[in-house]
Amino acid sequence: MFLSNRSRYAQNPIEEGDALAEKLAREGRNITKLNRGDPPVYFPTPEYILNAYIEALKAHKTSYTNASGVPELKDAIRMRYKKRYKLEVDSESVIVTQGVSEALSFLNEALIDDGDSAVLFKPYYPLYVPLLNLAGGKEILEKYEESRNWNIHVESLEDTLKKLKKNGAISKVKYLLLTNPNNPTGTVLRKDVLEKVVSLANEYDLLLVSDEIYDEIVYNGALFTSVAEVAKDVPFAILNGASKDFDSTGFRLGFAIIPGSDKKSMELKEKFADFARMRLSANVPAQYAFAEAISNTKEHEKSIAYMVKEIESRVNFAVSMLKENPYISIVKPNSAFYLFPKIDLKELKFSTDNEFVNKLLMEENIQLTRGSGFGAPSHIRIVSLPPKDVLGDAIGRINEFCRKSAQGSRPKKKAAKNSK
Amino acid sequence: MFLSNRSRYAQNPIEEGDALAEKLAREGRNITKLNRGDPPVYFPTPEYILNAYIEALKAHKTSYTNASGVPELKDAIRMRYKKRYKLEVDSESVIVTQGVSEALSFLNEALIDDGDSAVLFKPYYPLYVPLLNLAGGKEILEKYEESRNWNIHVESLEDTLKKLKKNGAISKVKYLLLTNPNNPTGTVLRKDVLEKVVSLANEYDLLLVSDEIYDEIVYNGALFTSVAEVAKDVPFAILNGASKDFDSTGFRLGFAIIPGSDKKSMELKEKFADFARMRLSANVPAQYAFAEAISNTKEHEKSIAYMVKEIESRVNFAVSMLKENPYISIVKPNSAFYLFPKIDLKELKFSTDNEFVNKLLMEENIQLTRGSGFGAPSHIRIVSLPPKDVLGDAIGRINEFCRKSAQGSRPKKKAAKNSK
Repeated sequence: MFLSNRSRYAQNPIEEGDALAEKLAREGRNITKLNRGDPPVYFPTPEYILNAYIEALKAHKTSYTNASGVPELKDAIRMRYKKRYKLEVDSESVIVTQGVSEALSFLNEALIDDGDSAVLFKPYYPLYVPLLNLAGGKEILEKYEESRNWNIHVESLEDTLKKLKKNGAISKVKYLLLTNPNNPTGTVLRKDVLEKVVSLANEYDLLLVSDEIYDEIVYNGALFTSVAEVAKDVPFAILNGASKDFDSTGFRLGFAIIPGSDKKSMELKEKFADFARMRLSANVPAQYAFAEAISNTKEHEKSIAYMVKEIESRVNFAVSMLKENPYISIVKPNSAFYLFPKIDLKELKFSTDNEFVNKLLMEENIQLTRGSGFGAPSHIRIVSLPPKDVLGDAIGRINEFCRKSAQGSRPKKKAAKNSK
Repeated sequence: MFLSNRSRYAQNPIEEGDALAEKLAREGRNITKLNRGDPPVYFPTPEYILNAYIEALKAHKTSYTNASGVPELKDAIRMRYKKRYKLEVDSESVIVTQGVSEALSFLNEALIDDGDSAVLFKPYYPLYVPLLNLAGGKEILEKYEESRNWNIHVESLEDTLKKLKKNGAISKVKYLLLTNPNNPTGTVLRKDVLEKVVSLANEYDLLLVSDEIYDEIVYNGALFTSVAEVAKDVPFAILNGASKDFDSTGFRLGFAIIPGSDKKSMELKEKFADFARMRLSANVPAQYAFAEAISNTKEHEKSIAYMVKEIESRVNFAVSMLKENPYISIVKPNSAFYLFPKIDLKELKFSTDNEFVNKLLMEENIQLTRGSGFGAPSHIRIVSLPPKDVLGDAIGRINEFCRKSAQGSRPKKKAAKNSK
């Protein structure tokens, strides 16, 4: 065989409909893309960030730089965590990456050999699994529980860790990876749940990794707790970046913070720096723009406050419309900008969420992502960033699509009842 | 063990002296850095490229884009290869990457399982080996032969392939990777040598990969032949990018072209696109700048002509100075911007090139890269980009450092003879 065996893991469910959507668009259709969480499409990247980017270019910041990030950006990141989460870290604990995806690659390459594993939670961000698998690792899937407002099922986690310890497999578990605030569920973890997870990580001597890329996009009265605020004696890493809070997806800049001075943390941060050196550096002028994006807190506060207020309003509007759909149930989001409703496949006469998503694209020109791509079949992910007219129109059409699908050949009276 | 076993491969010899060099700089020393091949430090990135970058930012090109590259950039790349090498490729055959380093990662992830191998040539670009090893592959090291002006030892290659076929190991060989023009040797492959390699790749059914990132930086009367011009019936891939010809290292943009419509080429280009989707996209505004860098051939011709003329002059000047050093021998470069002389370790009283390089940094504040990092012990790599005053001063001090090292406790008369 020519291709490697493990290369079969290379896939991204979020973009899998793109080829078809592009084909349909070329045929003249107007596709409503609600599959990619891409804020700058609807909230232009703030001018003060673009200006800093332009200044860096005018100052000819176009040669290689420190592999793990320009000092200005590292300092801005350090200050942010000090002010926001009272976390003090030195420069060596911050590694700037080409998006969080690269940080995830470093994590897996640094820790995973064939036969190792990691604890992930369903529904997961779709790239966690293939990046782990590509490195030779297997996922141990615990869960965010829909009936607990998507909080972690801690008893199940505890039970699993206990069993892993008993059968000697715990030494193969290299990390436990949280997404908080969560994509796709759009919810934050309760502080007491997070504390319990930290205490389990401590008890079972596991590296805790928290992907917190939506940490400023929190609303509907929710309170977000960073792992930095509760993990005191346990090695941990935080992943974050420019894409969401700073509305700059196209910069492709992320970072990892590995604050500890324990042996594991020291080894890991040094290894991340080694991996960073292997690709010389991340885009350089964008790093100066990202540094300004973080440091200019006055401008940032203005932008993020507006964006979060708008997202809250759009999400709540979309949820209220979805609630009119009898084939759909949803936990109301309080963070990020995704809706992750459960769909009643049986009533809708679809055998899979994939079939639902494909038919919706073909018939209604609306592109969503299938829940099974996140490890949660019978769900769909709807990006709730567009303005209300676009979003309202799309959700209206999704509701109508569901009504018609459910009707199908079913008796009129049942359909009539359901469409009330 | 916490870190993965294979993560020990993560290293980059080119940057390994950076920590010490930075420490010395903080202590007030003035370090002459001749370790990184970073053209914009000495030849500012052309204004027309920066202007296109700025225009893209002003036009808010800051959201995600096609994972394998914006159409404008792909089209520019296709046109370049059509005009320059008469190679016609479709859009799906071009994948834009985060530097050539990412293209190399895709290559290895796509093709290499544990126990597979690839044919590399010594001296190699230092990242080829660890990227292969990280993926579970082993290098089969053939050679660029110093006594043949760094051309490939084709008889040795043929012999090795014959043996691999005989013992059944040839099916495990996934690719053969050339660097042409070469880093670190600064030489181009002769056309007849390249043709012979192509014919061997064909005979043994091997994917031929050619890293041609210096393809416009050719001088001293040399003629460069792209693999695109000689590989007709064999699956091949070309790697290139913005860093060198387009003087934009800090953009971190590269690309792979996989032109074939044979089964292997089709599988490989689709797999590259899968990997590209896993990190969403490369930096977006930089892609528009790179598209303009290539398309605006009038401006590009001006910039590259000046840069190549200057590099030729600086390299030849440096070579003439090195020829005065009796402990050093060098094949005169005709491409790229590196000097890769052999040093007489025994006469210089060093046990390794590493020791030589470290002592030179400590005593003379000059940072080079050790040849052993390229698989060629007893060599040093000197980046020959700085203007003649800086370069002349540095090489003068290297010569003096060698003279003093060789003298050491040796009899005066021998030293005197050598310093003539």
